[in-house]
Amino acid sequence: KIDADRLWDSLMEMAKVGPGVAGGNNRQTLTDEDAEGRALFQSWCEAAGCSMGLDQMGNMFARREGTDPDALPVYVGSHLDTQPTGGKYDGVLGVLSGLELIRSLNDMDVKTKHPIVVTNFTNEEGTRFAPAMLSSGVFAGIHTQDWAYAREDAEGKTFGDELKRIGWCGDEEVGARKMHAFFEFHIEQGPILEAEGKDIGVVTHGQGLSWTEITITGKDAHTGSTPMPMRRNAGLAMARVLEAVDEIALSHAPHAVGAAGHIDVYPNSRNVIPGKVVFTVDFRSPDLDVITDMEARLRVAADKIAAEMGVDIAYEKVGGFDPVAFDEGCVTAVRDAAERLGFSHRDIISGAGHDACWINRVAPTAMVMCPCVDGLSHNEAEEISKEWAAAGTNVLLHAVVETAGI
Amino acid sequence: KIDADRLWDSLMEMAKVGPGVAGGNNRQTLTDEDAEGRALFQSWCEAAGCSMGLDQMGNMFARREGTDPDALPVYVGSHLDTQPTGGKYDGVLGVLSGLELIRSLNDMDVKTKHPIVVTNFTNEEGTRFAPAMLSSGVFAGIHTQDWAYAREDAEGKTFGDELKRIGWCGDEEVGARKMHAFFEFHIEQGPILEAEGKDIGVVTHGQGLSWTEITITGKDAHTGSTPMPMRRNAGLAMARVLEAVDEIALSHAPHAVGAAGHIDVYPNSRNVIPGKVVFTVDFRSPDLDVITDMEARLRVAADKIAAEMGVDIAYEKVGGFDPVAFDEGCVTAVRDAAERLGFSHRDIISGAGHDACWINRVAPTAMVMCPCVDGLSHNEAEEISKEWAAAGTNVLLHAVVETAGI
Ligand SMILES: NC(=O)NCCC(=O)O
Ligand SMILES: NC(=O)NCCC(=O)O
Repeated sequence: KIDADRLWDSLMEMAKVGPGVAGGNNRQTLTDEDAEGRALFQSWCEAAGCSMGLDQMGNMFARREGTDPDALPVYVGSHLDTQPTGGKYDGVLGVLSGLELIRSLNDMDVKTKHPIVVTNFTNEEGTRFAPAMLSSGVFAGIHTQDWAYAREDAEGKTFGDELKRIGWCGDEEVGARKMHAFFEFHIEQGPILEAEGKDIGVVTHGQGLSWTEITITGKDAHTGSTPMPMRRNAGLAMARVLEAVDEIALSHAPHAVGAAGHIDVYPNSRNVIPGKVVFTVDFRSPDLDVITDMEARLRVAADKIAAEMGVDIAYEKVGGFDPVAFDEGCVTAVRDAAERLGFSHRDIISGAGHDACWINRVAPTAMVMCPCVDGLSHNEAEEISKEWAAAGTNVLLHAVVETAGI
Repeated sequence: KIDADRLWDSLMEMAKVGPGVAGGNNRQTLTDEDAEGRALFQSWCEAAGCSMGLDQMGNMFARREGTDPDALPVYVGSHLDTQPTGGKYDGVLGVLSGLELIRSLNDMDVKTKHPIVVTNFTNEEGTRFAPAMLSSGVFAGIHTQDWAYAREDAEGKTFGDELKRIGWCGDEEVGARKMHAFFEFHIEQGPILEAEGKDIGVVTHGQGLSWTEITITGKDAHTGSTPMPMRRNAGLAMARVLEAVDEIALSHAPHAVGAAGHIDVYPNSRNVIPGKVVFTVDFRSPDLDVITDMEARLRVAADKIAAEMGVDIAYEKVGGFDPVAFDEGCVTAVRDAAERLGFSHRDIISGAGHDACWINRVAPTAMVMCPCVDGLSHNEAEEISKEWAAAGTNVLLHAVVETAGI
């Protein structure tokens, strides 16, 4: 059994780094706060007797040795970066539960055959630099490192420059490590487990995602003196596309969701008809055909709106991954651990993307989930109980030790 | 006759201060660039033998003495501040044509009975600090100075602090000056004069404006794992309100216009359903009843949308002025000058707000307009010809000299 209080204390300690404005966190990737969080995590790992590896994407790897020098490590972990108005658990729980697992094994003086490595993947959230799960994606060979380095934030700063600036760019080649297995523990970020009163979600699948950045170009003009028929209002065109996004997602309900979280209007002046709007449409479904259909219908609908309104429209796919089926052996290890420990559990599909979704491409992978209050995440008010955190960490411990062998 | 080349050279010289990114200007109010533009204007006025007055709103008053020590001055002018992506003529032409008129009177050694004062009113555009025409509004007793000083920009900086920071806060009490008359020359910012091939617009009226800042509050939540029925998407609610704005304005076509130029989405992250959106609706009409109707219908429509979507909505009126009828005597002076000089002209209603709209409350006022290419304004590509600028300045000269007496 892990130490629930110690885990909780570490979560609260990490939450002091990059505090938000409403009880949550703003520790966005490759900011000074991210660097501070990394240093704190490293100090804890070293105190637990781990050695720290760092690759060229800033991915961190805290290693506890195993008894078999030839055995590949079992990896556990998630990410320490947060949304601009994020919660204290999204990602962080997955990293610190891995640390707690090592601390507990140390306390119990249990040696595993395979080494255990706790990871912190860089830029999972994808807010500052799209796409999400950028560095686990490079690790899994989905993106090239050069492409990842060239990603730009809203101010035009690149991922590569910012990684170097904060001092967390390592020497290690990305993806060179081979994994025996990978486990990620994460809060559900949805309402199902809490509603059904389950302690544990055994994640069998992850839904797929499609991010399309749309740029609508109309013409900046005076809001007072430009007659209505002469207007090319990019903001109004966006409004119509947002309505289409909602209709398209709802047409596949409950097997799809859709929204736009990011919207930038130019020049953003009260008396200038928007000449340009850039926004990102987020479509998700566990079914690849549904995602493909939504993408196609979005373009048809938005092209039609643009043509009717005399505005130009351009699309760029800035993120996406196909629906994921996790490794049967690892999923079984999670389910068996929950069962053995007497926790109520159910199989579940992850609604969010996770580093595990990419790592699944290069290693047998599964995920553990715990409930979160009201299904709320990507909100400073995100909340879980200490018991939920402990239950998931215990399941993680058992699945990992089972897989790593004693 | 004024010197068309000298006027044009001054316009081009001023356009070098706070250049835009596409040939226009970004010389927003109370920025360092604004201060630089003011200093250039002051140096030109002093070279033309004027004394400079500066009031506590930063309004500038360049005075050429008259022959009658008891006569109130005739004022001319407009504003030197620009939109973030503004043109080279909006406002600037009105100030520099006033200066050119003084330079021409100096050349011709003509003395007027009434003094002539050229003004630069602070923050006409209203982009950085709402409302527009803020300082002419304080001058006319519409707003208190304390209220104006407390206006905040998007970063929370106040008008009062920024005015002092750039060093252009004077001692003079605002509105203490009495005016014999006020004339403002401005580009049309609409398509009518160019389409009809008229040199001059004789502005008889100005349409009224209503700015409502709307805040919609939903709930930040994950775009992937939050089921559609649980969402409180403030961005989608805004989209529906934008559609209503368009419908309401079109229902009064061609006697009304409506749009939203300013839209801020929070937290503005690709994978967070917008929890808050703040945007400003701009409605205009020459008919006060139409404005009142549009305001009322907006609230009904938006309240309904908010109730249906389970989001909160709040309204703040951040700017507005009633439709204006300019002074008959001054309007006649403008029309007679255009006629006398042989320019084609027509009466016109201003679609935009102008400092003249407020000054009209405290002094007999009228406006002169010249065409602009494609009716385009509030766009860096705003363009006029040297001939158009010269024609309007000649009309201004004649109307002013007629009113100031020789
Ligand atoms: N778990 C999580 O919130 N990941 C961010 C990527 C996504 O948008 O799903
Ligand atoms: N002339 C002008 O563009 N003034 C700004 C105020 C308005 O929006 O009408």
